Amino acid sequence: MNSANTKKKVRTAINPTRQENYPEWYQQVIKAADLAEVSPVRGCMTIKPWGYAIWENLQRALDDKLKATGHKNIYMPLLIPMSFLEKEADHIDGFAKECAVVTHTKLEKNAEGKLEPASPLEEPYIIRPTSETIIGEAFSRWIQSYRDLPLLVNQWANIMRWEMRTRMFLRTSEFLWQEGHTAHASDNEAIDETLKMLDLYADFVEEYLAMPVIKGEKSESERFPGAVNTHCIEAMMQDKKALQAGTSHYLGQNFAKAFNIKFLNNKEKEEFAHTTSWGTSTRLIGGLIMTHSDDNGLVLPPKIAPLHVVIIPMIHKEENRKNLEDYCEKLANDLRQQSFNNKAVLVEIDNRDLTGGERGWSWVKKGVPFRIEVGTKELDNNTVFVGRRDKDYKDRKVLPREDFINNVQNELNELQSSLLKRAHKFQQENTEVLNSKEDFYTYFTKGNQGFALAHWNGSTEIEEKIKKDLNVTIRCIPKVDNKEPGKCIFSGESSPQRVIFAKAY
Amino acid sequence: MNSANTKKKVRTAINPTRQENYPEWYQQVIKAADLAEVSPVRGCMTIKPWGYAIWENLQRALDDKLKATGHKNIYMPLLIPMSFLEKEADHIDGFAKECAVVTHTKLEKNAEGKLEPASPLEEPYIIRPTSETIIGEAFSRWIQSYRDLPLLVNQWANIMRWEMRTRMFLRTSEFLWQEGHTAHASDNEAIDETLKMLDLYADFVEEYLAMPVIKGEKSESERFPGAVNTHCIEAMMQDKKALQAGTSHYLGQNFAKAFNIKFLNNKEKEEFAHTTSWGTSTRLIGGLIMTHSDDNGLVLPPKIAPLHVVIIPMIHKEENRKNLEDYCEKLANDLRQQSFNNKAVLVEIDNRDLTGGERGWSWVKKGVPFRIEVGTKELDNNTVFVGRRDKDYKDRKVLPREDFINNVQNELNELQSSLLKRAHKFQQENTEVLNSKEDFYTYFTKGNQGFALAHWNGSTEIEEKIKKDLNVTIRCIPKVDNKEPGKCIFSGESSPQRVIFAKAY
Repeated sequence: MNSANTKKKVRTAINPTRQENYPEWYQQVIKAADLAEVSPVRGCMTIKPWGYAIWENLQRALDDKLKATGHKNIYMPLLIPMSFLEKEADHIDGFAKECAVVTHTKLEKNAEGKLEPASPLEEPYIIRPTSETIIGEAFSRWIQSYRDLPLLVNQWANIMRWEMRTRMFLRTSEFLWQEGHTAHASDNEAIDETLKMLDLYADFVEEYLAMPVIKGEKSESERFPGAVNTHCIEAMMQDKKALQAGTSHYLGQNFAKAFNIKFLNNKEKEEFAHTTSWGTSTRLIGGLIMTHSDDNGLVLPPKIAPLHVVIIPMIHKEENRKNLEDYCEKLANDLRQQSFNNKAVLVEIDNRDLTGGERGWSWVKKGVPFRIEVGTKELDNNTVFVGRRDKDYKDRKVLPREDFINNVQNELNELQSSLLKRAHKFQQENTEVLNSKEDFYTYFTKGNQGFALAHWNGSTEIEEKIKKDLNVTIRCIPKVDNKEPGKCIFSGESSPQRVIFAKAY
Repeated sequence: MNSANTKKKVRTAINPTRQENYPEWYQQVIKAADLAEVSPVRGCMTIKPWGYAIWENLQRALDDKLKATGHKNIYMPLLIPMSFLEKEADHIDGFAKECAVVTHTKLEKNAEGKLEPASPLEEPYIIRPTSETIIGEAFSRWIQSYRDLPLLVNQWANIMRWEMRTRMFLRTSEFLWQEGHTAHASDNEAIDETLKMLDLYADFVEEYLAMPVIKGEKSESERFPGAVNTHCIEAMMQDKKALQAGTSHYLGQNFAKAFNIKFLNNKEKEEFAHTTSWGTSTRLIGGLIMTHSDDNGLVLPPKIAPLHVVIIPMIHKEENRKNLEDYCEKLANDLRQQSFNNKAVLVEIDNRDLTGGERGWSWVKKGVPFRIEVGTKELDNNTVFVGRRDKDYKDRKVLPREDFINNVQNELNELQSSLLKRAHKFQQENTEVLNSKEDFYTYFTKGNQGFALAHWNGSTEIEEKIKKDLNVTIRCIPKVDNKEPGKCIFSGESSPQRVIFAKAY
C-alpha cells in the first residue's frame, strides 16, 4: 500500500486505490484486466478470455496433481432429483435455501401468445449445489467389495448456489470448481485422504498462486452440511480479511448410510464405506487478485500467467519498421525456446496502433510479468528495455538482449518466489497473538484487524456472539505440531490450542 | 462383421454381435468398456473414468487446434433468461419444445412437512440448449468498432436439451460440448470462418478419431434454428447409418439484429455484424465407438486412447515374481521414454489378482491398442508377447523386447492410419450412386441402405415424403469441386448436384 509519508497523490492506473476503497478497487482491477463481467443472469458472471486463460492454467496444474495422486475424472449429471438431497438431513438444511429448481421441460405460448413454462416434472430437479448425493447413489452401485476400495474420483463442473450477495469470483450464483469424492474401507484411511488433499491444496496454492495459506479445521458451526469435520486452507488478502481457498471434508459414514454405500470386507462382512469430498473453485482467482494486485492492476504469478513476456515495438519512423519488427520477431522466437516450469516461455508481440504508453499500461493492468520495449536505441545496441510487473512502472532497465533471454527462466522463478515471500511477510506482519477479551475487541475495532491467534473453549455461543459483535469468525483451528493449551480469553475455560479469528470473505 | 461363410458361431466378448442386434451391441460395448452409464436423472448419463479420459484427450487436441486458429476460451452463464430465447423467432421455435426451465430458487417444507419449490422467479431461466442468445447480448456490448472484429471465442460447457428418446453419447438430455461463436465485419469473412471451422472439424475427426467424414451443407429443413445455413460433417457408422459429427453455422445478421450487435465501420457508419457458431460434442465418442469397435468391444485410435500399451505379467510360480515384476517395470519405463504424437507413450502394468485371460480380455474390451503378456519364456528370451487390438485375439506374436520398444511409435501410427483406412474403405463400399426413384426405394428397403448419392430438386416436400416413406433424410449437399448437374430422380426437375441420402442417428 502507499507509504504513509507520500505527500502528493501518486497517479495510479486503478481508481480508487486499495487504501481508498478496497472492495471497489477489487472490481476495478477485474475490469481493467478484462477478467470477467457481471452477466444479465442474476448473480452469475461471464468469464472473459484473460480470466478464463488463468482458470485453465490453474485447472491444468491442479488436475495433474490430482491425477498423480491416483484420482480419476468423471462427469456426473448437472441435475439432482429433489429426493436425493433430502436423504441427508444436514445436507438438505444447508442447501435448501439456495437451490435453483427445475420444474418444467418445455416452453409454450399461452392464450395471450406469451411464452410460459409447460410440461411440469413430477419430481423437481435441483441444479447441483455440490454432488455428494448423486455421487453417493453411484457409489452405492459401484462399490460391492473391499476390492473396489479406495474409490477415488474427481469432477470439473459448474455449480449453482443462489447467493443473495454476490461478488465476482468470490461469491457467484454459478461458479466453476473441481470436486473430489472418495470412498474408503476404514475411517483412518478416509481421514488420511482428507488430510492428504488438504496438503495437496496448500502446496498447489502456494506453488502456483504464490498464496501462503494456513491449514486447519473448521469449528462445528462452519462445517460442510453433512460432514463429520471440515478442513480448510485460509489465506490473507491485502485488506487483512481471510479467504477460504479450499476445503476438504471427512464425511464419516453419513452419506454412506444415506445412500447405502456398503461393501463386503475381507471377512465377507458388510460394512458402510467412509467417504470424503474436497473442492476448490474459481474463487481462487478472486484470492489471487486480492493477494498480489496493486494500485496499477493485476499482478500475476508467472506459473499461472497466460503470458510471460510482452514485446512492445516502438516504431517512431516508418523507415525503421522492418528492422524493428524483425528484431522483435527474433527476440520473441528466441524467448520461446526458453522454458519455464517445464513449458515454453509464453511471448507475444503487441503491434497495436496505440502509443507505447497505452500498450505498456494495458499489460501492466493485465498483470503480465515482463514488458519489453524495443525502439531504435535497443535495436542499435542489441538491448531490451525491461519492466517487471511487481516493480514501479518507472523502474525499468536496459539489458543486453542475450542476458535477458538467458536469464528469463531465472527471472520468472524469482518473480514467482518473491510474490510468495511478499505475501507471506504480509500475512505474518498482520497476525497477532491476543491474550485477553479486551485486546481482542480493541484489535477488531480500532486495531490492525488481521488474523488474531487466541484461545477459545470450543463454544458455539461464544463464536456467535463474536460474529454478532465484530463480524469476526473462527477461520480455522490450525494444524500445529505442538498444541499449547491455555485459557479461553472469553470464558476463562480451558482451551487445547489457539485458533485463528478474522473477518472473512 | 462376420464373414458370410462362417459356419460355427465364433465366441465373442460382446453379445449380441453387431450383426445380431446393432443398437444393443452398442450399449454392451459401452458397458463392457465401462465408458458411461445411464443415470437416475432422466435422459442424462454419467461419464465414467475411461469414457471421460477419452473425452479429455479429444478435448485437449481440439482445444489446441481452436487456439492455434486464434480462438479464445470464455465461460458464459449456464442459465439464459427466457426473454433472450424469444428474440430470435426461429431459434425459440427450435428449442422451446426441449427446455429445462428453472422457476424457483429455494426449497421449503410445506404444511405436511414435504419439500417443495419456493421463491418463484419473476422471469424463468432456461438451462442453455446452446448459447447464441446470451453470447449475442454480450457481443452487443463487446463490439463497438470494426477494430473489435473479428471477435473469435469458444466455450467448453454442458448443454441441456430435454430429449424424449435418448441413447448414451449419441443423444442425451445433458451433454458436454464446445461451442464457438464469432462476429465479423462482412458476410464473406463470416462465411469463410464457417467453412474454415468445418475444415478444422473434418481434419480433427479424421486425424484423431480416425473417422472419415463428408463435408457438406444441410438442406433448409435440417438447418440450425436461426441460421442462414448450416454446414456439417457426416460420418458412416458400421450399420451404414449416418452420424452428424459436427456443425458450423453461418448466422448472417439474424442474431446481430435480434441482439443489436452493431459496429462502426472504417467509414464511421453503423452496421450489423455477421456472426457464426459451430460445435462438436460428446456425441463424437458415440461415433468413435460405432466406427471402429468390433464384436469383442471398443477399439481405440491411439491418438485418443487413455492408454497405449498394457503389460500383463503372467506369474505362475512365486519364485519368478520378483524377476518378472522387474522385467515388466523396466519394460514399462523404457516404453514411456518413447514418444507418440509428441507425448510420452502411455503404459500401465496390470497386476490384478486375475488370470492372464481375464486381464487380457478386460483390456480388449476397453480398446487398448497393444497388450503385452510377459511370462517366464519372455523373461528367458528377452521377448514380449504382443496382441494388437484390431487383430484377432489369437493372432499374437513374439517379438524381441528391443524391437517392440523401438517400433512402438511406428506401430501406434500404423494402427491409427489403418483404422482410418478401414473406415474409409467401408464408407466407400457402402456409398452408391442412384439414378432412379425405383432404385432409390429398393436401395433403402431391400438394398444396402448405406449412403445414396442422388439428384434432388431442392424441394422440402420431397424430403418430407422420403423421410415419411423410408426414414431417410438428406445428410448433406456435399462440397465438391466440380458440380455435375442432372435431373432430380423424384421430380425430373433440374438439380445442381447430387446430395447424400441416408438413415441417420
